[in-house]
Amino acid sequence: MVQTDALATIEHASVRFDTPFTLECGTTLPNHTVAFRTSGTLNAARTNAVLICHALTGDQYVAERQPVTGKPGWWEMMVGPGKPVDTDRYFVICANVLGGCMGSTGPREMRPDGSAPWGTDFPPVTIRDMVRAQKQLIEHLGIARLFAVVGGSMGGMQVLQWAALYPDAVFAALPIATAAHHSAQNIAFHEVGRQAIFADPDWQGGRYWESGRIPARGLAVARMCAHITYLSEEALTRKFGRRLQGAPKDSSEAISLFGEMFEVESYLRHQGSTFVQRFDANSYLTITRAMDYFDLAADYEGDLANAFRGTRTRFLLVSFTSDWLFPTSQSRAIARSLNRAGANVSFVEIPSDKGHDAFLLDEPDFHRTVAGFLRGCAMHAGLAA
Amino acid sequence: MVQTDALATIEHASVRFDTPFTLECGTTLPNHTVAFRTSGTLNAARTNAVLICHALTGDQYVAERQPVTGKPGWWEMMVGPGKPVDTDRYFVICANVLGGCMGSTGPREMRPDGSAPWGTDFPPVTIRDMVRAQKQLIEHLGIARLFAVVGGSMGGMQVLQWAALYPDAVFAALPIATAAHHSAQNIAFHEVGRQAIFADPDWQGGRYWESGRIPARGLAVARMCAHITYLSEEALTRKFGRRLQGAPKDSSEAISLFGEMFEVESYLRHQGSTFVQRFDANSYLTITRAMDYFDLAADYEGDLANAFRGTRTRFLLVSFTSDWLFPTSQSRAIARSLNRAGANVSFVEIPSDKGHDAFLLDEPDFHRTVAGFLRGCAMHAGLAA
Repeated sequence: MVQTDALATIEHASVRFDTPFTLECGTTLPNHTVAFRTSGTLNAARTNAVLICHALTGDQYVAERQPVTGKPGWWEMMVGPGKPVDTDRYFVICANVLGGCMGSTGPREMRPDGSAPWGTDFPPVTIRDMVRAQKQLIEHLGIARLFAVVGGSMGGMQVLQWAALYPDAVFAALPIATAAHHSAQNIAFHEVGRQAIFADPDWQGGRYWESGRIPARGLAVARMCAHITYLSEEALTRKFGRRLQGAPKDSSEAISLFGEMFEVESYLRHQGSTFVQRFDANSYLTITRAMDYFDLAADYEGDLANAFRGTRTRFLLVSFTSDWLFPTSQSRAIARSLNRAGANVSFVEIPSDKGHDAFLLDEPDFHRTVAGFLRGCAMHAGLAA
Repeated sequence: MVQTDALATIEHASVRFDTPFTLECGTTLPNHTVAFRTSGTLNAARTNAVLICHALTGDQYVAERQPVTGKPGWWEMMVGPGKPVDTDRYFVICANVLGGCMGSTGPREMRPDGSAPWGTDFPPVTIRDMVRAQKQLIEHLGIARLFAVVGGSMGGMQVLQWAALYPDAVFAALPIATAAHHSAQNIAFHEVGRQAIFADPDWQGGRYWESGRIPARGLAVARMCAHITYLSEEALTRKFGRRLQGAPKDSSEAISLFGEMFEVESYLRHQGSTFVQRFDANSYLTITRAMDYFDLAADYEGDLANAFRGTRTRFLLVSFTSDWLFPTSQSRAIARSLNRAGANVSFVEIPSDKGHDAFLLDEPDFHRTVAGFLRGCAMHAGLAA
C-alpha cells in the first residue's frame, strides 16, 4: 500500500483568479486556482470550444498521459483527432473541478494565509460552484459561448447545471449516464466510502499531511466499494465469474479455502491500491458530498422543467441499459422535463452490459451517437467541416 | 462506537459432540459445539420437525428475544403459534451455524487445547460443513426425517445443500431469496466488507481478544456496505429519499453542507454501530467466505440437476422482484435444474419493492405462499391438522 503523497510532486498548468469567489455555502475564497488542459485550436471566431466535465475521480487529462499514473487520458476513445469530439475541429477544454486534487483549489491546497493545507476545513462545494469556476475559466479564455459541454456521471451533472445556469453560453449539451439528483442509494454508497476513510486512523481527522501517512487503506476500501457500483453484474460475471487464483502467501488476511481466492477479489484490491496513488482522501470526501447534494430541480421550485424553460440549447441524453448507478429511468426523467420545457432534446439508451463505466469504454454505438449529434449541431451552429 | 465484547457475556443452550468432525478443507475438529433453540413440540412419531436455517448475520433466536440485543427474534413474522411455520403444529429447530458467534464452534470459541480462541486460525468452513453439523444435531434429537427445511439467503443455500446431501431426510425444502452459487458481484461486495475489517487497526490480525478492543469501525463499514445490498433502490427512496436532518455537532467527520446530512446516512451509521455489538468480526470473515465458495453445481460435475436426480423432496422456491442481490433469475435457474431432475417444484416470484430483505419483512403474499405450501405438504406427509 502506497503511503507517500505522490500528488505533491506534480505541477499542473493552471490559472489563478484573484477576485473573491463566494461559494453556495456562503464562504468566500479570496482567490482560487483552476487547473486545466486544452487540445485542438480555437478558431478565430472563438465558436468551436468544447468543454469536457470530468467525473468524481477524473481529472483534466482527458486525452493525454496522466502525469501521476503515466496512463493514457481517461477519455481518449472519445476525444482526439478524428474521434467523436474531434480535436482537429474543436478546441477542447477540461478543468479539474473545484475541490479536486489535480491542481485546482481544493482540500490539499494551501489556505489563503499560507499557514497549512485546507484539509477538512475546505468549505463544502457544490456542482454549481464547480460550474461557476469553469465559467470564469471560459471567460478568461475569451470564449463567450461554448459549442458543446460534454460529461458523464458527475460530469453530466455539471452539463445539466451549465445548461440551466448559462443557457446562452451552451449551444449543445451532452449529459451522459447521469441524473438531475443523486438517489438515496447513490448517497448510501458514498457514505460507506466516507465512513471507510473516517475509520482509517491514518486519516487523522483529515490532517494527514502532518504525519505524511495518507489514509490509504480507508480510501482503497472506498474505491473498491464504488468500483462495484460502476460495473454491471453481467460485466463482473463475464470478466471474472467465479474463477479462482492462488492466494497471496504472505498475507494473514486471505482466510482462503484451499489456498485460493477469487480473481474478482484480486482485481478489486488492485483497483483500491492504485487509486490511492492518484487521489486525495479529503477531495474524495468533498466531491462525493457535492454529488450527494446535487438536486437541480430543488433550485427551481422542485420542477426540473423550470431549469430549462426557453432554452435554445440542443440536448443529447445518453444512458446505458446495464447502468444501475445512474439508470435509464433517471435520464428519461430529465428528457421528460426538457420536453415539458419545449427544449430540443434527443435521448438514446445504448444497449451495453458494461454498467455505468460503459461511458468510458469501447462502445461503438455510443461513440457513433455522440459523433453524429455533434456533426448535426456543428452544421446548425455554422461551424464549417 | 461500542468497543467491548458484548457477546462474551451470554450463555447459549447447546450440545457438544465429542466425535472428530472432518471439515471439507481437510481439518479435523476433535470436538465441536452446536448452539440451537427449539419451539413447539415434537410429535410421538417424530415427523413434524422443521429446521430453520439462518442467514449470514442471523442466529438461532428465530422467534424469541435475542439475548444480546433484547430485540424480537429475526423471523417472528414467519415462525410462531398460528404463523406460516406454525409452532402449534411443528417442532421448530434452529441452530447457530458452524463458524458463527452465538455459541456454535467458531473463531471466537477456544481452540481444542484451550490455549486461546481460534481467531483467524479457525479453519475455513463451507455451507456443506454447516449442514453436516446440523444433520448431527437432528440425529442427536432423534429425528430421522425433517418435515421441512426452510431458509432465506445463506439459509436458502443450506436448504439446497440439505436437499442435495440428504434427500431422504427432507420431505419439503423451501429455499428463499437465494442462489445455487454466489455471483461475482456478491463476492465483490463481501470482499469490500472483509477489506474494511482488515483495514481497522483494532482487528490486530484477528487477535483482538488480546487487547480487548474489537474492530468495531471496520465491521461497521462492512455492515453498512452489505446493508445497502439488502435493500432496493425503491425501498431506500421510499424510506429516506433525499431528506435531510441536522448533522451531529460533535463530529469532525460530517463535512456537511449547511450543517445537514441525509437521513439515509444517519440510518446506515446506526445500522453499522448496532451490528458490532452482536457480531464477531472473525465470524463475519469466516461466514462470508463460506457463502462466496458455495457453488452446489460444482460438486455435481457442473450440472445442478445432478444434485437432485431422483429426489422425492417437494420444493418451494421464492424470489422477490426487487431483490438485486439474489435476483429472480437465480431462483429460476434452480427451478430449471429441479425440473430437469424431475423434482416436484413450485416457484413463486413475489412482487415487492423491499429488496433482498423482503424475506424478513411484512410481505403477506409471501407468508400466505409459505403457509399454503406447508399445509399441502403436511397433508401429503400424513401430518394431521
